[in-house]
Amino acid sequence: MAIKTLSAKNAAALDKDLMSIGAFSIDQLMELAGLSVSQAVYRVHPPTRGRRVLVACGPGNNGGDGLVAARHLWHYGYKPTVYYPKQSKNDLYQRLSTQLKNLNVPFTEDFPAALKESDHVVDAIFGFSFSGKVREPFPAVIEALSSTSIPVTSVDAPSSWNIEDGPPSSGPGSTFNPAVLVSLTAPKPLVKYFKGRHFIGGRFVSPDIQKKYDLDLPDYEGIDQIVEVGANGQKL
Amino acid sequence: MAIKTLSAKNAAALDKDLMSIGAFSIDQLMELAGLSVSQAVYRVHPPTRGRRVLVACGPGNNGGDGLVAARHLWHYGYKPTVYYPKQSKNDLYQRLSTQLKNLNVPFTEDFPAALKESDHVVDAIFGFSFSGKVREPFPAVIEALSSTSIPVTSVDAPSSWNIEDGPPSSGPGSTFNPAVLVSLTAPKPLVKYFKGRHFIGGRFVSPDIQKKYDLDLPDYEGIDQIVEVGANGQKL
Repeated sequence: MAIKTLSAKNAAALDKDLMSIGAFSIDQLMELAGLSVSQAVYRVHPPTRGRRVLVACGPGNNGGDGLVAARHLWHYGYKPTVYYPKQSKNDLYQRLSTQLKNLNVPFTEDFPAALKESDHVVDAIFGFSFSGKVREPFPAVIEALSSTSIPVTSVDAPSSWNIEDGPPSSGPGSTFNPAVLVSLTAPKPLVKYFKGRHFIGGRFVSPDIQKKYDLDLPDYEGIDQIVEVGANGQKL
Repeated sequence: MAIKTLSAKNAAALDKDLMSIGAFSIDQLMELAGLSVSQAVYRVHPPTRGRRVLVACGPGNNGGDGLVAARHLWHYGYKPTVYYPKQSKNDLYQRLSTQLKNLNVPFTEDFPAALKESDHVVDAIFGFSFSGKVREPFPAVIEALSSTSIPVTSVDAPSSWNIEDGPPSSGPGSTFNPAVLVSLTAPKPLVKYFKGRHFIGGRFVSPDIQKKYDLDLPDYEGIDQIVEVGANGQKL
C-alpha cells in the first residue's frame, strides 16, 4: 500500500489551516513541534548515551522548532549547544533564543568545532518550505552532517533534500541520510529515500484536517508526542 | 524540614518574570501548564479507568490551563466535556475554545448533569490569583466538587481555597479536599491543608528564577512534565 504523504504545497496549506481555522498560534505549534523533536531525541539517544547535543538551527520555522527542542533537552538533563548563524529578528525567535540564554545554553559560531564535541546532532536547518539551493553558511554544515559518524536527527526533512524528490543529485546533501527523522504532522514525499528511524510528531491535528489532506496517521500511544513509523512512513 | 512554597504575591511576580525576563509568551506557558495537567490526569486516572473527563474552567488563566488540558486529554483518547460558564473575550481563550470545538469536544452549561456522566473532574476554576468570595455561578459547582465521589484533579489550587490559608472556614469549599493537585511551577502555602496525590508541573523554570524565589524543586524524570511530591509538597 502506498504511504499517504503531504506534499510541500499541502504542508504549507495545512500549516496555514492550523493557524486560521485551527486557531493555533505559532507559539503553540512551535512549542509542541519542538517538544516532539525533544522526545524523539530522548527515545533514540537517552542522556545516558551522551548528553552533548548540538542543535543546528536555520533561519525559519524549522530553526524555531530546534530552539524549542534545545530548551526541552536542557530540562531533560542534556547539555545542548546551539548553532544559529542566521538569527531572525522576528520577536518569537528572539524570545526562544532568550529562553535558552537564561539556561546558559551556549551558542556557537564554529559548527565543525562544536560537532567534534557532540554526542548527537539535531538538524533543524530547513523544513518543508525549503527548495532550490542551500545558501551560505549552510553548504559546509550539510557536508559535515553528511560525513559525520555522530547520529543526526532531522526535523521534518533532512536539510537540503527536496521535499518531493529527496536528496539532491550532487553537491551538499547528495550523500546525506540522517539516522533519525521526525516528520511533523505527517511524512513528506521525500521519506521514500529515507533509511533511518522515523517518527511522526505534532499531536495536534484534528480529524477534519486529517480528512481534508487525506492523511492516514498512526495512533500515538499514551501521552507520547511522537509515534514511530517505518523509514518510509508505513505504520509499524 | 519546612517545605519551600510560593506565596500568592510571589507566584504573581514569578509569572510576570517568566513573561518579561523569561521571554515566554502566555501561549507557551499555558500550553506547557495544560500539558502538565493532562499528564497528571493520565497518571492517576488512565483512560482504561474511564474516559469521561469533565473539565471545569474559570474565567482566567486557570481556566485557560484547563482548556489546554482538555485538548491534550482528547488526543490521549479521553472524552472530555468542558464547563466554561464565564468565557473570556480574550483572544487566547477564544482560540483555545475553538481548538476544542474543532475536535467536537462538547461544552456544557449544566454542571450537575455533566458531573453525573463523568469518571474524573478537572477543577480549573481558580488559581493563585484567587482571593475573597466565590462568585456566581461557581458556589454550587464548588459544593458539587466537595460532595462528589468522583475524583477531582485541581489545577494549582483547590478552587475556593485561600492561597495562603487553605480552605475557607465556612461556605463553599470548606469541606473540599480534591483527590489530586497539580501545583504549577511550585507548591503554594495552601498545600499544608491538602491530603491527596500531589504533582508539580511546569517544567520551564530556570535556575535563576528558582534561586530568586528560593524554590527547592524536585527533579523531574525522563521527559515527564510532572513530578510527584508528598501531599504537603515534600520530596518523595
